[in-house]
Amino acid sequence: MSAPAGAGDDLEAERLARAELSRVFEPGDTRCTGLVAEIGGVAMHTALSNERDLAGVRTDYGARLTATDGAVELERAERLGLRFVIPGDPEWPSGLDDLAGVAAVQERGGPPLGLWVRGPLRLDEVSGAVAVVGARTSTSYGNAVAADLAATVAEAGRVVVSGAAYGIDYRAHTGALAADGRTVAVLACGADRVYPQGHDRLLAHLAAEGAIVSEAPPGCAPQRIRFLARNRLIAALTAGTVVVEAAIRSGALNTANWAGRLLRPVLGVPGPVTSAASAGVHQLLRDGGATLVTGGTDVLEVLGAAGEHLVEVPRAPDRPRDRLTTRQRQVLDGVPVGQGARADSVARAAGLGVVEVQGTLRRLEEIGHVERDASGWRLGPLAMD
Amino acid sequence: MSAPAGAGDDLEAERLARAELSRVFEPGDTRCTGLVAEIGGVAMHTALSNERDLAGVRTDYGARLTATDGAVELERAERLGLRFVIPGDPEWPSGLDDLAGVAAVQERGGPPLGLWVRGPLRLDEVSGAVAVVGARTSTSYGNAVAADLAATVAEAGRVVVSGAAYGIDYRAHTGALAADGRTVAVLACGADRVYPQGHDRLLAHLAAEGAIVSEAPPGCAPQRIRFLARNRLIAALTAGTVVVEAAIRSGALNTANWAGRLLRPVLGVPGPVTSAASAGVHQLLRDGGATLVTGGTDVLEVLGAAGEHLVEVPRAPDRPRDRLTTRQRQVLDGVPVGQGARADSVARAAGLGVVEVQGTLRRLEEIGHVERDASGWRLGPLAMD
Repeated sequence: MSAPAGAGDDLEAERLARAELSRVFEPGDTRCTGLVAEIGGVAMHTALSNERDLAGVRTDYGARLTATDGAVELERAERLGLRFVIPGDPEWPSGLDDLAGVAAVQERGGPPLGLWVRGPLRLDEVSGAVAVVGARTSTSYGNAVAADLAATVAEAGRVVVSGAAYGIDYRAHTGALAADGRTVAVLACGADRVYPQGHDRLLAHLAAEGAIVSEAPPGCAPQRIRFLARNRLIAALTAGTVVVEAAIRSGALNTANWAGRLLRPVLGVPGPVTSAASAGVHQLLRDGGATLVTGGTDVLEVLGAAGEHLVEVPRAPDRPRDRLTTRQRQVLDGVPVGQGARADSVARAAGLGVVEVQGTLRRLEEIGHVERDASGWRLGPLAMD
Repeated sequence: MSAPAGAGDDLEAERLARAELSRVFEPGDTRCTGLVAEIGGVAMHTALSNERDLAGVRTDYGARLTATDGAVELERAERLGLRFVIPGDPEWPSGLDDLAGVAAVQERGGPPLGLWVRGPLRLDEVSGAVAVVGARTSTSYGNAVAADLAATVAEAGRVVVSGAAYGIDYRAHTGALAADGRTVAVLACGADRVYPQGHDRLLAHLAAEGAIVSEAPPGCAPQRIRFLARNRLIAALTAGTVVVEAAIRSGALNTANWAGRLLRPVLGVPGPVTSAASAGVHQLLRDGGATLVTGGTDVLEVLGAAGEHLVEVPRAPDRPRDRLTTRQRQVLDGVPVGQGARADSVARAAGLGVVEVQGTLRRLEEIGHVERDASGWRLGPLAMD
């Protein structure tokens, strides 16, 4: 890497340094992310290149950095249609910086050195986005709910972020697309790669209309530890994380955990308690780690600014009873369900005069609320429920 | 009613007074329950009989009281196999007294004047009971969950209390009975009546082995307003209320509301968000009015004294990975999922020495965790979920 030529080139020098560090360090390696967030990529790069031991980082990273050419990395990425977005770029999603204040998990954490991005969607437009994540081995119930929820959220103008995995992730992306909404995939492998293979069409679609994002440089393979690092980005890029289905040890719960520690809302969609695919979500809801949502409208309500997205309070359809006067309802309350009762008994039960009650009963009979037989007045088979 | 003969007869004088008041006032009529809780049944009876206007109660109640004979009421009840349990009786369930401190709903509230009881179960044994309530128009999912939950709760020795209605109530009672547990029905009509008719066998069973309870005296018909009054008793008799399925305006939510205002735990079983029968429960859970439970074990954990009923934390089955050493897992974390990687690349990703990594990879290959082809080492199709 060559040194920066002047102040105007500071950002590009930083980009070159971070591109090389990104090639040499694993995504989310806290030995690198923490220091870089503190002292910057150029200083970190210089220190490592001089083989000074920084926070126990093996000095052979210095040798590897020397063998890496940031300019070549960036050119190669550009040829693949990728850009490398770093702090200081107008496009940089500032939510990622919050990762600096959150403890690592399995030695992964901190703000990413940068994001390798494919696709036209600018990352600063992701602000206010919603992460929709869940089980790979989802059920048809979860699939339908995820697609519907993502569509509602996307229709409201919010970007849907997920991981492009099988199951819930896939339905989240395609649900958003079906609503002509915007959606972003955060991958554990290089953003140029097609993983999983079966999602080649989805990824092509995202590359053409949305964005595919990764902390790992182009060409990197999906590795277990990269999935863990990736999950923290999904949480940090979004205003809240919705878990649709998740078994007890699902990776989606790892994303939810990151969101919670970032103090972003965690939302969970319940399902049948008999479904193992919902057990992880129920655990999350039970422990108070998440707010229950039943669909996209609930999500918008929880995430929206005060009054911005007022939830439609679910209402039962108007019942015939609702159209009665208070007095009529009072009389109706005194009428038995089964065996009939005489008007004076109804009057006593209702706490009203018998003459008035008789008149009201006749009116209620006309409009079909009560009926009369030999034993007296009684309700029709009204649902008590 | 005759005046009490002496101090030893005070309780029986109170019983006679309350039996007559119970016949004349509707269940939960706050014009009566509040005053009786304060001044006692005998004093209330005397005042009304003297036609003094008490808190606006119409003095014609005095006339009706004069026409009522408590001794006859109690004898008739006894012939029907009912007893009238009042405060001061050893059997009186003290939880009902908490109703004195809770505001009325639709002018119903306060501790009941007494409970008319049929069946051998003593009401003081109901202490620590669990209310299991829900929709009349329940689904097969809700039915199965209610029965299973009630069985688990009953097996743990707790009494299951419900309302003997169709749907969830029915499954709650029969689930408890199937587990050889104890169960109590609280009715809106007289405890001697069979309502709903279709549950004649269940009610006969409860009368023989459990208890059927009502605030309304024998013979009273089920009336809408009596259901509202009844719901407060289900909540007050129990240590917590579980709602299994409930539509948005379900009566079960009224019971849950009483439980909440009595500061008793309210628990809700979620279901598919696509099911209208669960919408009321989801609303309750979403608004923080209830704790999510997935079955009887959860219920016992929430209601149990600290450490008494430790919930079995659901665990995923052991995975092959769990049987590896830390070092082996560390190496495995560096192995890609798709395209293979050379040992030095794996070593770099894992942050370990290449020689050691090669040995570990061979061991992992022997036990089936990784495989090797022309491109190098890679994982088998391990579920990332």
